[in-house]
Amino acid sequence: MKESYTLIVINGPNLNMLGTRERDIYGKLTLDEISGMIESYARENNIKVIFFQSNSEGEIVSFIQNNRRAHGLVINPAAYTHTSVAIRDAIAAVSIPAVEIHLSNINAREEFRKHSFIAPVCIGQISGFGYNSYILGIRAIIEYLESRK
Amino acid sequence: MKESYTLIVINGPNLNMLGTRERDIYGKLTLDEISGMIESYARENNIKVIFFQSNSEGEIVSFIQNNRRAHGLVINPAAYTHTSVAIRDAIAAVSIPAVEIHLSNINAREEFRKHSFIAPVCIGQISGFGYNSYILGIRAIIEYLESRK
Amino acid sequence: MKESYTLIVINGPNLNMLGTRERDIYGKLTLDEISGMIESYARENNIKVIFFQSNSEGEIVSFIQNNRRAHGLVINPAAYTHTSVAIRDAIAAVSIPAVEIHLSNINAREEFRKHSFIAPVCIGQISGFGYNSYILGIRAIIEYLESRK
Amino acid sequence: MKESYTLIVINGPNLNMLGTRERDIYGKLTLDEISGMIESYARENNIKVIFFQSNSEGEIVSFIQNNRRAHGLVINPAAYTHTSVAIRDAIAAVSIPAVEIHLSNINAREEFRKHSFIAPVCIGQISGFGYNSYILGIRAIIEYLESRK
Amino acid sequence: MKESYTLIVINGPNLNMLGTRERDIYGKLTLDEISGMIESYARENNIKVIFFQSNSEGEIVSFIQNNRRAHGLVINPAAYTHTSVAIRDAIAAVSIPAVEIHLSNINAREEFRKHSFIAPVCIGQISGFGYNSYILGIRAIIEYLESRK
Amino acid sequence: MKESYTLIVINGPNLNMLGTRERDIYGKLTLDEISGMIESYARENNIKVIFFQSNSEGEIVSFIQNNRRAHGLVINPAAYTHTSVAIRDAIAAVSIPAVEIHLSNINAREEFRKHSFIAPVCIGQISGFGYNSYILGIRAIIEYLESRK
Amino acid sequence: MKESYTLIVINGPNLNMLGTRERDIYGKLTLDEISGMIESYARENNIKVIFFQSNSEGEIVSFIQNNRRAHGLVINPAAYTHTSVAIRDAIAAVSIPAVEIHLSNINAREEFRKHSFIAPVCIGQISGFGYNSYILGIRAIIEYLESRK
Amino acid sequence: MKESYTLIVINGPNLNMLGTRERDIYGKLTLDEISGMIESYARENNIKVIFFQSNSEGEIVSFIQNNRRAHGLVINPAAYTHTSVAIRDAIAAVSIPAVEIHLSNINAREEFRKHSFIAPVCIGQISGFGYNSYILGIRAIIEYLESRK
Amino acid sequence: MKESYTLIVINGPNLNMLGTRERDIYGKLTLDEISGMIESYARENNIKVIFFQSNSEGEIVSFIQNNRRAHGLVINPAAYTHTSVAIRDAIAAVSIPAVEIHLSNINAREEFRKHSFIAPVCIGQISGFGYNSYILGIRAIIEYLESRK
Amino acid sequence: MKESYTLIVINGPNLNMLGTRERDIYGKLTLDEISGMIESYARENNIKVIFFQSNSEGEIVSFIQNNRRAHGLVINPAAYTHTSVAIRDAIAAVSIPAVEIHLSNINAREEFRKHSFIAPVCIGQISGFGYNSYILGIRAIIEYLESRK
Amino acid sequence: MKESYTLIVINGPNLNMLGTRERDIYGKLTLDEISGMIESYARENNIKVIFFQSNSEGEIVSFIQNNRRAHGLVINPAAYTHTSVAIRDAIAAVSIPAVEIHLSNINAREEFRKHSFIAPVCIGQISGFGYNSYILGIRAIIEYLESRK
Amino acid sequence: MKESYTLIVINGPNLNMLGTRERDIYGKLTLDEISGMIESYARENNIKVIFFQSNSEGEIVSFIQNNRRAHGLVINPAAYTHTSVAIRDAIAAVSIPAVEIHLSNINAREEFRKHSFIAPVCIGQISGFGYNSYILGIRAIIEYLESRK
Repeated sequence: MKESYTLIVINGPNLNMLGTRERDIYGKLTLDEISGMIESYARENNIKVIFFQSNSEGEIVSFIQNNRRAHGLVINPAAYTHTSVAIRDAIAAVSIPAVEIHLSNINAREEFRKHSFIAPVCIGQISGFGYNSYILGIRAIIEYLESRK
Repeated sequence: MKESYTLIVINGPNLNMLGTRERDIYGKLTLDEISGMIESYARENNIKVIFFQSNSEGEIVSFIQNNRRAHGLVINPAAYTHTSVAIRDAIAAVSIPAVEIHLSNINAREEFRKHSFIAPVCIGQISGFGYNSYILGIRAIIEYLESRK
Repeated sequence: MKESYTLIVINGPNLNMLGTRERDIYGKLTLDEISGMIESYARENNIKVIFFQSNSEGEIVSFIQNNRRAHGLVINPAAYTHTSVAIRDAIAAVSIPAVEIHLSNINAREEFRKHSFIAPVCIGQISGFGYNSYILGIRAIIEYLESRK
Repeated sequence: MKESYTLIVINGPNLNMLGTRERDIYGKLTLDEISGMIESYARENNIKVIFFQSNSEGEIVSFIQNNRRAHGLVINPAAYTHTSVAIRDAIAAVSIPAVEIHLSNINAREEFRKHSFIAPVCIGQISGFGYNSYILGIRAIIEYLESRK
Repeated sequence: MKESYTLIVINGPNLNMLGTRERDIYGKLTLDEISGMIESYARENNIKVIFFQSNSEGEIVSFIQNNRRAHGLVINPAAYTHTSVAIRDAIAAVSIPAVEIHLSNINAREEFRKHSFIAPVCIGQISGFGYNSYILGIRAIIEYLESRK
Repeated sequence: MKESYTLIVINGPNLNMLGTRERDIYGKLTLDEISGMIESYARENNIKVIFFQSNSEGEIVSFIQNNRRAHGLVINPAAYTHTSVAIRDAIAAVSIPAVEIHLSNINAREEFRKHSFIAPVCIGQISGFGYNSYILGIRAIIEYLESRK
Repeated sequence: MKESYTLIVINGPNLNMLGTRERDIYGKLTLDEISGMIESYARENNIKVIFFQSNSEGEIVSFIQNNRRAHGLVINPAAYTHTSVAIRDAIAAVSIPAVEIHLSNINAREEFRKHSFIAPVCIGQISGFGYNSYILGIRAIIEYLESRK
Repeated sequence: MKESYTLIVINGPNLNMLGTRERDIYGKLTLDEISGMIESYARENNIKVIFFQSNSEGEIVSFIQNNRRAHGLVINPAAYTHTSVAIRDAIAAVSIPAVEIHLSNINAREEFRKHSFIAPVCIGQISGFGYNSYILGIRAIIEYLESRK
Repeated sequence: MKESYTLIVINGPNLNMLGTRERDIYGKLTLDEISGMIESYARENNIKVIFFQSNSEGEIVSFIQNNRRAHGLVINPAAYTHTSVAIRDAIAAVSIPAVEIHLSNINAREEFRKHSFIAPVCIGQISGFGYNSYILGIRAIIEYLESRK
Repeated sequence: MKESYTLIVINGPNLNMLGTRERDIYGKLTLDEISGMIESYARENNIKVIFFQSNSEGEIVSFIQNNRRAHGLVINPAAYTHTSVAIRDAIAAVSIPAVEIHLSNINAREEFRKHSFIAPVCIGQISGFGYNSYILGIRAIIEYLESRK
Repeated sequence: MKESYTLIVINGPNLNMLGTRERDIYGKLTLDEISGMIESYARENNIKVIFFQSNSEGEIVSFIQNNRRAHGLVINPAAYTHTSVAIRDAIAAVSIPAVEIHLSNINAREEFRKHSFIAPVCIGQISGFGYNSYILGIRAIIEYLESRK
Repeated sequence: MKESYTLIVINGPNLNMLGTRERDIYGKLTLDEISGMIESYARENNIKVIFFQSNSEGEIVSFIQNNRRAHGLVINPAAYTHTSVAIRDAIAAVSIPAVEIHLSNINAREEFRKHSFIAPVCIGQISGFGYNSYILGIRAIIEYLESRK
C-alpha cells in the first residue's frame, strides 16, 4: 500500500469558467465538479490534494513557491503554457516533480498552442483526456514518487 | 431609438499613465479625461459604461469573467495585445461581443506590435485614432448589437 | 457644426461583387446599398463623398493621385491590402489622411490576411464591422480633420 | 453523351508571348496555336470555350466576375499564381469550379514559383505538360461537372 | 493510332483503405474500383498497366527500380509525397518519365501537404480530381511519350 | 464493471532495444518486461491487448489498417513521431481512438523531437513517465471508450 | 563613334508624382524634368529614347512586349520591384538587355524594399543616385551593347 | 562628492527564491543577503535604495509607475525579460533612466533567454556577474546621472 | 600490425542502382564493383567486412540492431540521411562507432541535402570522394578503434 | 568644368585575381587593366584616384580610416559585402560619400550574395556591368559631389 | 586590499576613430582619453592594464593567444561581436575570464547588432554606458577574480 | 607508384593553440605534432607538403592565391568555415582541388557550426576524426588527382 503524499493541483487562467466555456473544446464539467472527482480519487488512494486556481501568473508563481514542501505538483497552466517563463522558472526553482496536463489535445489546435514553455521542466506532459487528464497526472506523479523511493 | 445596453471598457497596462506618458505617441489626454468623454458619449446614447483599468493580466481576465453579463466589451489591451493568451481565452470564454482598440496605429510601430493574440476572438479591431478609437469602438459594438436583434 | 469636407471612398478588387459573394464572410449588402448608406450618412454630416471601385491596382493608384485635393481617404483595399506596395506608395505620395477599413475581421482569417502593406501609411485601421466599418472610417477621418484645425 | 457546357479559359501575363519566349521552358507553340487545339478538342466534346488573355491582374479579375455564368474555368495565372490574392478572391467569389494549370512544372523551378495563392480555391491543379495541361484541365472540369449532376 | 505502352501505377501508403477512409476528402471508390476504371481506360487506349500499392517506402523504391523498363510511371505517393527523399531519388535514378497525382487538392489542406519532395523530379503534377487524377495522369504521360517519338 | 475491450499497443523503431539502449533516457526495462506489465494491468482490467513492434514505417501502417476492428490504439511511434505522415494518415483512416505515448519527456530533448505529426490525429498525448506512460495511455483510452458509451 | 540605338525608359507606379511627392526621399525634380535631362543626354549620345510611365503592372508588361525591338531597356519599377513576377517574366520573355534603376538607395529603407523580383533577370542594378541613376543606367546599357558588337 | 540620489531596485519573479534555487546558475546568496550588500554599497555612496520584489508582472508595472520620482531604476526582470511588453512600456512611460541586470549570463543559456523586450528601453544591460551585477548597475546609473548634471 | 576487426558497411536506398544512375553525380562504378574494392582493401588490412544494402529504412534499423557486435559501422544513408530519425536512433542505441559517408559532396547540392539527422550520432562524416569515401571511412574507423585500445 | 576631386577606389578580397579567375562571371580584364582604364577616365575628368586592394578586412577598414580626407569612395567589397560589419562601420565612421559596386549582378547569384551589410551606409549601389561598374560608380560620386556644392 | 592583477583591454575595429565618429552614438571621448581614464582607475586599484586596438580580426585572435597569461580580459569587439567566430574560439581557447563590453546599448540599435557570437564564452556582458562600460567591465572582472580565490 | 605531388595544408584561426586548448573537443596533439605526422605520411607517399597556419582571413586568402600552382589543398578553416565568403571565393578562384577537414564532428556541436561557406566549393568534406582527418584529406586528394590523370 502506498504511503501518504501531499500533491498540489494548480489550474491556470479561465479554468474557473469550465463547464460554461466553449464546452465542445473543454467539456461540460465545472472546475468544482472536476475537483470533486479528483478529491474522491485522491481519498481512495490515501493522498492529500491541495487545489489552487488563479488567473494571475504571479499568484501561480507564488503558490508554487509557497508549497514547495508538497511531494508533487499537477499543473494545467492553460494559456500560460505558451507564454509564461515565470511559471517555468518557478517549477525549476522548487524541488518537487511536476506534471503538465491539458483538458484538450493542444497538438490539434492553433499552432501557438503546440509550444509549451513549461513542459521541459516537468517530468512529463499529458493532454487531451478531459477531466481524466488530471487523474492520469496524479497517477503518474504517484508512480514516479513510488519509483524514487 | 436604441435600447439601453451595458458595456464594459477595459484598459490594459500603463494606460493609467496617459497624458503624462510619451504624448507624441499616445496623445495629451489623461485616462480620466478620456473616460469622461466616453461617459458623455454613452449618456447621449443611453448606454451604461463600466470602466476598468489594470496593469495585471490576471485581474483583466477576472474582470472579463465577472462581467460576462454585460452586452459588449471594448478593450484596449495595450502591451497585453501582443503577449496575452489568457485575455484571449477569457474573451473567447464569455459570450459577449468584443472590440479591440488602440490609441496609436499599431501597424506603424515596432514589428512585434503588429501581432495581436486578442483580435482573432473579437468581432473587430480599431487602431490609430487616439481617444476617438474608444468612441468608434463603442459605436461599432452598439451597431453590432442592434444588427443582432 | 462641422465644416464641409470632401472625402474619397475607394473599394478594391471584388468588392463590386458584394452581396452575391461569400455572404457569410462579407455580409448581404451590395456595394450600391453600402454606398447608399454611406451617402446618407455623409449628407447628414454635410460631407461630400466620391466613390470609386476598381479591380485594378494601377487604376486605384491613379485615382488616389488624381484626387489628392480631397480632405481625406477611406480605403478598403481588399486583396491589395496584402500585396500592393504601389497603393501604399500612392497614399504616402499624396498629402491626405487615409483610413484602411475591412468588412471582415482580417485577424481571424488566413495567416496572409493579417499583414497589411497599406496600414502603416494610414492614420489608422478598422476591421470587422461589415458595412459599418465604412461609417466608422468616415467618422474617424472627420474627427481627425477637426482635431487638426 | 455529355451535355453542352460553356467553359472559360484564362491566360495570365506574358502567355501572349508563347512560342517566341523561352521556348525551352514553355514550348514552341504560340498561344493562338494552343487555342486552336483547345478549340478542336472542345468542338469534338461538344463544349463551348471562351478565351481570354490579359497582362492585367484587374482585367482578369473583372473577366472572371463577368463570366460567372460559365460552367467552369480553366486558368493559367502565370506570374499572378504567386502574387495575386485578387484573382484568388475573384474565383472564390464566383460560384463556378476552377482548375489552375501550368505549362511548365512549377515545382522544378525557382523556389517562389512553388507557392500558389490561387490553387487553394480551385478544385485542382495541373502543371508540367505543356499545351496538354489545358486539355487535361478541360477534361478534369468536364468530369467534375458530370460527377456533380 | 498510338503504339502500345506499358505504364506502372504506384499507390502509396493508406491508399488501400480508399472508400472506407475519410470519404469526404478522398471519395467513395475503393482502390480496386479505381484500378478497374484505369484498367478499362488503358484497354481502350491499347496500354498495359501494372498496378502496385504499398505502405512501405522501401518497397516503392524497389518497385520503381525493378520496373525501370516501363515506358512511364504514374505515382500517388500519398503521405510519402511530403517525407520521402528516397522515392524522389528512385524516380531520378530510373530513366522513365513520371507524373505525380493526388486524389485531393493538396494545396487546400494542411500546410505541410503543400510541399512535395517528388514533384521536382517528375514531368508534372496533377491534384484534386479524385479518381480522375489517375486517368489524367495516364493521359498526360501518353501524350508526353507520343511527343517524344 | 467495464465491458471487455481489445486494444492494440504499437511500438515503433528501436523500442525492441529497450533496456539495453541509452538507459539513462529510456529506463532499464526491456520491451518484454514492459509488455508483461501491461499484460498484467490489462488482465486485471478485463482487457485484451495485442502487441506489435516494428522498425518499419510501412509495417506499422499495415498493422494499424489490419487491426481497425480494435476498440483503441496506444502507440509509441518513437522516431516516426517526428517524420511519419504515413502513420498519421493510417490513424486518421481507421475509426479507432488513439493515444500517442512516449517513455521520455520529448519536450525536454532535441528541438526536432518536440514536433509530432501523429499527435494531432490522436485523442491525446502522454510523455515522460517511462513504462508507466503505456499504463496511463491504456487507462486514458478505456475511460474515453467508457465515456462514449 | 557609337551607332544609333533605341532605348526604352520605363517608370513604374507613382513616379508621375515625382517632385511633388516625398521630396526628401525622391528629390525635387518632376518626371518631365528628368525626362528632359535624359532626352538631352540621349541626343548628345545619338540615342533615341522612348519614355513610358504607368501605374499599372499589366500595362508595363504589355509595353515591354510591344517594344521588344528596342536595343535596350532601363526600368525604374518602383513599387513593382518588390511584388511583380509579371514584369520579371516580361523582361525574361523579350530578348533585350535591361537595367533596373532606383532614385533612392533601396538598401537603406524598409526591409521589404531590399528584395527585387526584377533585378535577377536584368544585366544589372543601380540605386541611390536620384535622377542620375537614369543617366548611369543608359550609359551602362550602351556600354553593354557596344561590348556585345 | 556625489549628491544624494534615490534609486529603486526591482526584482522579478522567483528571485525571492535565490540561494535555495538552482545555486549552480544563480549563486548561493539569498535575496536578503544581496539586498544587504546593495544597502551597504548604497550607504557608502550616499544613495537611498528602495527594494521591490514581485512575482507579478502587473505589480512591477504599478511599482515603476508609482516610483517615477526616483532618480534611477535597476531592474532584474528575470523571466519577464523575455515575455513582458508591459514592463517595457512602463519603463518607457516614466522618465527615469533604467539599467537591466541579470545574475547569470543570459547569452550562454537557452535560446529564448537571449532576447530582451526590456533592454531596448534601458540605457544599458549588465549580465553574468552574480550579485555584483546589481552593484555594477547602481554604479552605472549613478555615473549616468552625474554625467547628465 | 592491426588486430582483426569486423566492420559493417551499410548502403541506403537506390545505391543498388549505382553505375546505372545519374553517373555524373554518383560515378560509373556499380555497387558490386565498389564492394569488391572495399573487400580488397579490407583483406589487405586484415579486416572482415559485412555488406548490406536496403531500400527500406526499417530493414536498415534492424540490420544495425542485429549487428551490434561488430566493431564499427560505415554507413552511406543516401536519401535517409535527411529524413530518418529512426536510423539515427538505431546508431545511438547500439554501442559501436559509426562513420557517415557520401559519394557526392552533399554540401554542393540541393539545400535539403545539407542537413543530416545521422551525422550528429556518428564519430564523423566524409562526403564527396566517390567510392573512395568508403575506403576513407573504413580507414577512419580503424584508426579510431586503434586509438581507443 | 568640374573642380578637382580625390577619390579612393577600394577592391576587396580576390579581386587581385581578376582575369585569371572564373572569367565567365567576372570578365577577362585583370585588375591592373581595369585600374588603367579607371585611371584614363579619371584623368580625362580631372580627378585624382588612389587605388587599394586587399584580401584583409582589417586592412580595408584601416585604409578607409586613413583616407578620410578623400572626397569620395568607390568600393567593390567582394566577399566582404556579405560578411563585414567592420567595413560598414568604417564607412559610417568617416564623413565621405561612398558607392558600392560589383562586377557581376549579385542579385542573379547565390542567395547569400543578395544581402549587403555595406550598401545601407553608401549613397548607392551599382552591380552587374563588369569593369564599367567602376566607371559608373566614379561618375555617380562626382555628380553627387557636384550636386552638393 | 586586492592583490595585483594584469588585465588586457581589447578594442575592435573602428574604435580608434572614437571621438571623431558618430558622436551621438559613441560619445565625444577619443580612445586615448578613454584609455587614460582606464589607466587612472587601474592605478588606483593596483591593477596593470595592457591596451590593444586592431581593425583586424586575425590580429585580435593572435593578441588574445599571446596574452593568455593575463588574469582577465575586457573586450569591446565592436563590429566583430556579430560576425567573428574566430574571436569567440580564441577566448574559449585561452583560460582567462573575459567580459564583453559595448559603449552603446546594442539592444537598441539595428536588429543584427543584438546577436553576439562572443558573449556566450564570456562570464558576462555590459553594454550602453559609454566609456564607463570599460570601468564596469574591469570592476566586474576583478570581483570575479577575487571571488575565485 | 604515385607521381610526386605538392599539396598545401592550411590551418585556420586558433589551430596554433591545439594541444593546449579544449582538449576534450580537439585532442591532445599540438599543431606541430600533427604537422610532423602529416610530414611522415607525406614522405612515405612521395608527396611534398607546404604547411600554413594563420589567424587572419586575409592571409589565408592570399596564401591560397600565392600557392595556386600546388596540386591540391587541404584546409581546416576552423572558425572561418562558418563566416568566410572570402576564403570560399579564393578556393573557387584558383584551379586546384580542395578538401575541407575538421578535427571535431561539426555536426554534433553548436547549430551555427553545421553550416560551411567553404565546403560547396571543395570536392569534399571530412570531419570528426581528430588529426586523422588531415591524413584522410591528403589521401582523398591524392586519389582524386590520380583518378583525373
